[in-house]
Amino acid sequence: MNIIPFPDRAEWPALLARPVQSTQQIETAVAPILAQVRAGGDSALVELAKKFDKIDLDSSQLQVSSDELDAAESQLSDELKAAIRQAYQNIRLFHERQKQPIEKVETMPGVMCWRKSVGIEKVGLYIPGGTAPLFSTVLMLGIPAQLAGCREVVLCTPSNHPAIYFAAKLVGVTKVFRIGGAQAIAAMAYGTESVPQVYKIFGPGNQYVTAAKMLVAKEGMAIDMPAGPSEVAVYADDSAIPSFVAADLLSQAEHGADSQVLLVSTSKKLLNSVNLTLGTQLSRLPRQDMAAKALENSKMILLDNQADAIDLLNDYAAEHLILSIENAEEVAEQIINAGSIFLGNYTPESAGDYASGTNHTLPTNGFARAYSGVSLDSFVKKITIQHITPEGLQNVGPVVEAMAEAESLDAHKRAVTLRLASLTEANPV
Amino acid sequence: MNIIPFPDRAEWPALLARPVQSTQQIETAVAPILAQVRAGGDSALVELAKKFDKIDLDSSQLQVSSDELDAAESQLSDELKAAIRQAYQNIRLFHERQKQPIEKVETMPGVMCWRKSVGIEKVGLYIPGGTAPLFSTVLMLGIPAQLAGCREVVLCTPSNHPAIYFAAKLVGVTKVFRIGGAQAIAAMAYGTESVPQVYKIFGPGNQYVTAAKMLVAKEGMAIDMPAGPSEVAVYADDSAIPSFVAADLLSQAEHGADSQVLLVSTSKKLLNSVNLTLGTQLSRLPRQDMAAKALENSKMILLDNQADAIDLLNDYAAEHLILSIENAEEVAEQIINAGSIFLGNYTPESAGDYASGTNHTLPTNGFARAYSGVSLDSFVKKITIQHITPEGLQNVGPVVEAMAEAESLDAHKRAVTLRLASLTEANPV
Repeated sequence: MNIIPFPDRAEWPALLARPVQSTQQIETAVAPILAQVRAGGDSALVELAKKFDKIDLDSSQLQVSSDELDAAESQLSDELKAAIRQAYQNIRLFHERQKQPIEKVETMPGVMCWRKSVGIEKVGLYIPGGTAPLFSTVLMLGIPAQLAGCREVVLCTPSNHPAIYFAAKLVGVTKVFRIGGAQAIAAMAYGTESVPQVYKIFGPGNQYVTAAKMLVAKEGMAIDMPAGPSEVAVYADDSAIPSFVAADLLSQAEHGADSQVLLVSTSKKLLNSVNLTLGTQLSRLPRQDMAAKALENSKMILLDNQADAIDLLNDYAAEHLILSIENAEEVAEQIINAGSIFLGNYTPESAGDYASGTNHTLPTNGFARAYSGVSLDSFVKKITIQHITPEGLQNVGPVVEAMAEAESLDAHKRAVTLRLASLTEANPV
Repeated sequence: MNIIPFPDRAEWPALLARPVQSTQQIETAVAPILAQVRAGGDSALVELAKKFDKIDLDSSQLQVSSDELDAAESQLSDELKAAIRQAYQNIRLFHERQKQPIEKVETMPGVMCWRKSVGIEKVGLYIPGGTAPLFSTVLMLGIPAQLAGCREVVLCTPSNHPAIYFAAKLVGVTKVFRIGGAQAIAAMAYGTESVPQVYKIFGPGNQYVTAAKMLVAKEGMAIDMPAGPSEVAVYADDSAIPSFVAADLLSQAEHGADSQVLLVSTSKKLLNSVNLTLGTQLSRLPRQDMAAKALENSKMILLDNQADAIDLLNDYAAEHLILSIENAEEVAEQIINAGSIFLGNYTPESAGDYASGTNHTLPTNGFARAYSGVSLDSFVKKITIQHITPEGLQNVGPVVEAMAEAESLDAHKRAVTLRLASLTEANPV
């Protein structure tokens, strides 16, 4: 990787810019697919499976049968099943602690306000096919859905990998469909004869899936977050172990040629050492072509001091940020833009990707400036509730009357005035 | 209002459907405005102000000066200022209690995971002009932004009402701009010479503003939520006071001809009584034409029993739900879809609209099935953080290795294997 020494702040924006992807063309391809599924339902899904995936299905085969789901367990090694169950337990524990108790707040005497969390009734999860069977993502999306108490959890995937089916059963997915691509998003957004319409759609996917999610979001469908290529930023000093840093960079790079990798340091020695071990490690990887391409777009940035590093990392807003530095926890407190932060030499990103307990569905592409990763919050709505006693209305009512009048909303005022009048009459209504 | 007696469940979807608004035409009008501001910055804003608002500005006048903001205070009555300050206090108290302490979770020995909340650095608030100067919305958006610690809070509004400026100062808005319509959304989304680019945009607006928000959201900009006409559902029984119910329906109806009003009851007597008082109250309203039109699209639904009422209300997913019934709190527990719930006879919607403490920016149009109203959460991101000790990696590492291998992500596995190997060597790295 190229080392960029001491770039001027004015150069940072260009240095940190993600490749711009033109979405217009993809949207133009995706919009008719959405319309076709919306109008044609199951039969459109069957046609599209034939057209794009070269699969002959009839509509009764769209849903994966419970026999098929049950059979998955016997096709996996005991070691893998134990690992999935342990990851399930860790992820569940971390997300369970995100539950908030109901707290009633008396803002004025007799004015009680609170919030209750309710699971979104119907959610849809998309799990792509491709080379890596992302059963870990089934856990990451399915566990908070289960904890939230979502009643219908629909999973669409073109993959029939037994680990995906096994994980789906574990998290209590209610229906699994063998549908891939933009048409899967359409099926869950609009509903078909077989596929229930859901209220929020989650999950990764290629550019077509992403475009489909953004288009249905424009129509009001809730989605987890906008998506972009996965990325890691590592900030390392001389306390970092170069081979570990190189391994972390490669674990990001193997995701695909469009993956983004950034290494920031105030130590030229560290950067040189990482570069040295990177080549050796790369040559041993099965996915080395992909990783090598990703590294071509990647950067090592040498900076003067820690303050600069923190500013640059906050400007970049990485999906994953690894702090392999002496004072990692202290620096983490100054990070304001990142999806997830990994502290120290023994906290590789892959721990969070699979099993430490945190969620791996995180904001890419700088979206961490405004978005959080998926959590229990993503699967619930918080409904506010209030109860005002007659005494409470006497306290807050005049405030409401004055403000409503100033906003020229007379009926708003009268809804209070009428009630207050009833309370001061000798014989209340 | 027409009473619809005992509709069959099969008829519910049609009965509860919101009017479908075609957005295509509006988007086609809005897209060039977005492009113009993106390319032209301040000078485009000046041109558009001239074209749409018939206002001659130069670009130095886009920002409202601090003198103008300061002057607002003297233009408001003491009563109104006191009311705004009291509302500020209540809203602040309720939203302050939404802060969550950091809780570290040890998912396995040596594997620590936690989340920290960080205010979104730059947010934009839009406050429309029009007949009602919505200074209450300045409080509803500005207070959680202030509590979240957002560093830059930009407010765009075509209104120069002193109460809006006063509220903006109170909540610590950092910059106010006299920009309205879709061009205001564009200015905050892309930034101009004067207007800072923000990371999330909040606030109500007409169909052009809404379309602009949805279009920039498709590009990845975070927004509060999709918007639609305001609405209330009231569920009342014979314990309800008909004149209060009528007043609540009217306070929604006066928002505009497209407002949605729904009254549900199992008591025909109650519905008749409400209808009787509705006419009288309507005739006294300054905005009676608007309210009368809204009532034309509104419905009273007579149902057999409470279980039906709860199902119907959950199907409707009202922005505001008033439960003027004997067992209001019990029924509220069974409500799974609503923006905000108001319990009992002395809890009018207008209390929550202005001053009880809850937020009035709520999901309309059935979006309450998936979306929450605005809260402190809307202005923060939650960043996950993890720290794994060498011992912790020995616990979680083998789980990660097994899963990464099964997903064919070899470099992910190696990032762990390398570290584990270093720990078992006689002389660790």
